[in-house]
Amino acid sequence: VRIAIDAMGGDAGPGVIVEGALDALRNGNRDLELVLVGDEEALRREIEIRDGTSLPVTLIHADEEVSMSASPTEAIRRKSSSIAVALSLHKEGKTQAFVSTGNTGAVVANSLLSLGRLRSVRRPAIATFLPTAAEGCVMLDVGANATVKAQNLVEFGRMGTVYARHILKRPNPRVGLLNIGEEESKGNEVAQEAYRLLTASSLNFVGNVEGRGIFHGDVDVVVCDGFVGNILLKFMESVLGMVKTLAKKQIARDKRARFGAFLLKPLFAGLAEQLNYEEYGGAPLLGVNGVCIICHGSSSPRAIRNAIRVASDFVRNGLTEEIDREAAGDTVVTE
Amino acid sequence: VRIAIDAMGGDAGPGVIVEGALDALRNGNRDLELVLVGDEEALRREIEIRDGTSLPVTLIHADEEVSMSASPTEAIRRKSSSIAVALSLHKEGKTQAFVSTGNTGAVVANSLLSLGRLRSVRRPAIATFLPTAAEGCVMLDVGANATVKAQNLVEFGRMGTVYARHILKRPNPRVGLLNIGEEESKGNEVAQEAYRLLTASSLNFVGNVEGRGIFHGDVDVVVCDGFVGNILLKFMESVLGMVKTLAKKQIARDKRARFGAFLLKPLFAGLAEQLNYEEYGGAPLLGVNGVCIICHGSSSPRAIRNAIRVASDFVRNGLTEEIDREAAGDTVVTE
Repeated sequence: VRIAIDAMGGDAGPGVIVEGALDALRNGNRDLELVLVGDEEALRREIEIRDGTSLPVTLIHADEEVSMSASPTEAIRRKSSSIAVALSLHKEGKTQAFVSTGNTGAVVANSLLSLGRLRSVRRPAIATFLPTAAEGCVMLDVGANATVKAQNLVEFGRMGTVYARHILKRPNPRVGLLNIGEEESKGNEVAQEAYRLLTASSLNFVGNVEGRGIFHGDVDVVVCDGFVGNILLKFMESVLGMVKTLAKKQIARDKRARFGAFLLKPLFAGLAEQLNYEEYGGAPLLGVNGVCIICHGSSSPRAIRNAIRVASDFVRNGLTEEIDREAAGDTVVTE
Repeated sequence: VRIAIDAMGGDAGPGVIVEGALDALRNGNRDLELVLVGDEEALRREIEIRDGTSLPVTLIHADEEVSMSASPTEAIRRKSSSIAVALSLHKEGKTQAFVSTGNTGAVVANSLLSLGRLRSVRRPAIATFLPTAAEGCVMLDVGANATVKAQNLVEFGRMGTVYARHILKRPNPRVGLLNIGEEESKGNEVAQEAYRLLTASSLNFVGNVEGRGIFHGDVDVVVCDGFVGNILLKFMESVLGMVKTLAKKQIARDKRARFGAFLLKPLFAGLAEQLNYEEYGGAPLLGVNGVCIICHGSSSPRAIRNAIRVASDFVRNGLTEEIDREAAGDTVVTE
């Protein structure tokens, strides 16, 4: 499996990405090969420092970075950006997957333009692992589509089902519709129509879900539009950060609490790990004609390594093809 | 100040509501009078147990409860429910405010029907206090409107400004639009149009906000539609519950952590209090022609007492009238 990696996007420079990539090679399957796209000189140095010169890494030079604030339209004009170059390798079949820590909007726009959509998918969606008190679930869309039609949510349910089956190992994934109540009549018009379409579909649809059901582990797949999904995801990250800030403030004030916090260090570390969705291998853009994994700009080497693992799982298991088949399933063509 | 309280709605029976009501009378202003609407016999007993017979409480009998699963349309048919009876007291001027722990949809529908909207408000909205790492903010709408127009979001900004000024004591409340990025061009069509309208308004609009900015304390008022707002609120409640569940599981496994957790008990209690938005006095339905405060069905006596305090603050400060004036402000009539 050959994977192209955009090595310009990380917030902390190419070192973290190289570190994750080399870890993946050292610990992954023997047939894994990586193509790093970025500032060739810098990448070479980072590889040498880490004694990685004998590993199967190819470097492709592209030192133009798409800034985190660039709009998608701006981004697709940059034909020589590391995102565009890495994607064209994938498009031309020189690699079988693409991983990026770059600007999400830029990655989505470039992927749609370069790879295109699968035949049976109208709206590709970004899927993300969501930690729960049980074993976690996948939520989509978390940012590719600010507005959706009800039929798109069914498509998201199909794509999420394939992800949950193969990546989360759930034999018969339960699909829930994110909504503001359990009854069919709840929510806005799109949610109400989606409820009907999901019920009529061949998916294992278990109804509307809210926060409690999701965190309790009632579903394996949560479908929502990319507006709600993205806002939720950022809330999740932030609320945990806030709890930490508040706890630190209180601990600083109290000696006994300081000692208690010291004793609980392993607990906090364990919790942080369990709740850090980045550690679960990036967020795949499902529904494009290829494998595209989007990582946080602040990804750790471990997150990069996990994203590479997920990308190669996608390739090895032919998940793109399976998503195409599954999405074609009982799609009602309404557009 | 006379306040009508629907005493049928609480999950734990009337005892909790009576407890909160008596606490409010014992600790509040001398001119406070409460009218409890519910099963008269049961209420009398609960008051006697708590030695409250000499306090200024009037009982009005109405033993029909609107179930938590009843739809709003079902709810407004029940003319003799405790919600409807308590609201009619308020409507007729026999009380100046209304507090309920009942089914939110039922309270909203009955309030709109009974009290009606303020002249300058098109869409009343439920506002809730949101704890942050700073001093907290108010978010609206969190459930009265599944769909909104851009102009409604401006109205929410105006109503939230009045709340933040008087209840949160912020002299010049900063208003943020909940969105998926900071730039004006982000989000769905409603969000984009709302950005323009908010910028043109006389509000202290500081732009789009995401989770991080909100919890960092960048804004005093967060506006959003009731679909996103309600989903977020339930996520917030649940994610903290999940962290607790996960922490408990880990603590149970580890002796050292058990001791650490014991030492941290006051910290956890403090955190829980800081993060429990119910403790901040219920969620007012802003924009109706009256004072209507909605509490969680699982409210504690303290939450009830705080809701009564907020209700009397609304009355004493003439906030309903101020909301009407503020909303009339520079409203662009587009419907």
